[in-house]
Amino acid sequence: MASIREVAKLAGVSPATVSRVINGTANVDDEKKQRVLKVINETGFRPNELARALFKQSSKIIGVIVPNIENPFFSELAKAIEEEAYENGYKMLLCNSNNNEEKELMNIHMLNQLKADGLIMVTDSNNTIKNLEDNGFPVVLVDRKLSKINEIAIVESDNYSGGKIATKHLIECGCKNIVCMKGPQNISSAKQRYLGYQDICKEYGIKEQYIECGYSYDIGLIKAEELITKYPDVDGIIASNDMVAISVYKTLTQKGYNIPEYIQIIGFDNIKFSCLFTPEITTVAQPITKIGKKATQIIIQYRDGHNIERENIFDVELIERQTTKRKG
Amino acid sequence: MASIREVAKLAGVSPATVSRVINGTANVDDEKKQRVLKVINETGFRPNELARALFKQSSKIIGVIVPNIENPFFSELAKAIEEEAYENGYKMLLCNSNNNEEKELMNIHMLNQLKADGLIMVTDSNNTIKNLEDNGFPVVLVDRKLSKINEIAIVESDNYSGGKIATKHLIECGCKNIVCMKGPQNISSAKQRYLGYQDICKEYGIKEQYIECGYSYDIGLIKAEELITKYPDVDGIIASNDMVAISVYKTLTQKGYNIPEYIQIIGFDNIKFSCLFTPEITTVAQPITKIGKKATQIIIQYRDGHNIERENIFDVELIERQTTKRKG
Repeated sequence: MASIREVAKLAGVSPATVSRVINGTANVDDEKKQRVLKVINETGFRPNELARALFKQSSKIIGVIVPNIENPFFSELAKAIEEEAYENGYKMLLCNSNNNEEKELMNIHMLNQLKADGLIMVTDSNNTIKNLEDNGFPVVLVDRKLSKINEIAIVESDNYSGGKIATKHLIECGCKNIVCMKGPQNISSAKQRYLGYQDICKEYGIKEQYIECGYSYDIGLIKAEELITKYPDVDGIIASNDMVAISVYKTLTQKGYNIPEYIQIIGFDNIKFSCLFTPEITTVAQPITKIGKKATQIIIQYRDGHNIERENIFDVELIERQTTKRKG
Repeated sequence: MASIREVAKLAGVSPATVSRVINGTANVDDEKKQRVLKVINETGFRPNELARALFKQSSKIIGVIVPNIENPFFSELAKAIEEEAYENGYKMLLCNSNNNEEKELMNIHMLNQLKADGLIMVTDSNNTIKNLEDNGFPVVLVDRKLSKINEIAIVESDNYSGGKIATKHLIECGCKNIVCMKGPQNISSAKQRYLGYQDICKEYGIKEQYIECGYSYDIGLIKAEELITKYPDVDGIIASNDMVAISVYKTLTQKGYNIPEYIQIIGFDNIKFSCLFTPEITTVAQPITKIGKKATQIIIQYRDGHNIERENIFDVELIERQTTKRKG
């Protein structure tokens, strides 16, 4: 069975011309076209081969699937990916999964059909990743590690250190009654942050106290109510992320608590809104732009046949602002 | 030349089976496959036809191009489009243009190659729209009207009324020295809002005062400084949107102005952040979700051969919150 190159050779044209004839996308000189078609017929170049050949070249598309495009962490991440992709001649296609497994699989299927060069994904679903096995493209996981591993690389922040840094900072600000708002513990990053919190509690001999929480503003509003009822003496709160910190600030302020005088709050992520907000939110910064750029570079390097690092962990950093205050 | 249907008929299989054989995407019983390939060879079903047939059916993809995915107005819009698309069996592909014409064209080209069923777009560029003429898919413009018209429909808010409502509200709150932060006047929505402001100024005999502004938080910070220097007696500010209102609040608060006691601020859009913020921002609400859903429905209805409305204008609504205060 002839390859597209052999067809090109026999017809005395370039492979690109064969591809154009097959695709019908650009004008090809009629005489050349006839020669190509003749060779295709003669060599028994098969439809299946043809269909594959149509798609063989790189699509220059990098797919991105995030759980919630409305969350600034993900829109900032997507923007960074898009910019890095563009600088390297790639396009980004962004899909929103709403943490819905069915949507994730639908989008993966679509990106596969579109012959995406790779996929950058944030997901909690081991099941989704299992299904990735059947796909032809490299996958880079961002932010969340999964137990079932088919990805080529993971890019994340040092969430364990982040949990430690947040807790230590509240202690240094004089907090005695710290409550940690845990992210969902099936998410690796949330788990690591909580481990960091626990280890500092042990180190300083302070009581472990937590509320199960999520990552959205709306869940934060509900959980802030629960927190203040369950722990009326709280003086320091580690919010599961900046969005939750913003909602906790709102709930507590409405109830008349002064922040940071009475209760101090620290977030996680350093989304841009955390400093647009008044007061500005103290937070543990993830280098969101660097993470997005790195994930993109990995896909491109992998495509180009270069070696890539499997584990890519970025340092986090304490950003002291107005919702915490050091003593003295 | 045989069509895919004729091949199917002759081979005694369904058109879907022929498509599967051509695509090589799913398993087809070997005996059936051989029958299909035989018919393809015998009927002279040509590669060009084949390539086209591969793509003939609807891709069930709706492309979306927005200027800045980091702006919550656009991420909320994208989320609404994605949800409406999903409910109708479509997928959304989201592209970020950074208001860069070259990126817009690149993304349009890509969506065209991917045989998107339609495009929902927010752009300022007449030039981009001119290039849309060559594309095979229907285009729905959102938020911004252009002079060169190739789109099938436009979905927008009643921005003129919005400008009037905002101005009237500040007057009712006792403001005497209102300054309007104009959005870029090449953008139809910004122009309409300013016209609304002007007409109320004329009606009430108050002085027209403005600052040229943009739509981002960063430009808002700069322009708030300029505003307070140029108009030291300002007591009411119409921000070009909610993001700018948030930055104006921050700049003025840092300078020691009390809001809303000394200066009142009204935004535009009603992005979710406008009420997460403390204080909550008074704003003129656009029905962002409805706009996104409508744009999506138009693409689908058009694809299904239904009649569609060309002009779709949604009412806006005053949302009184904490950055303005009625007298008495």
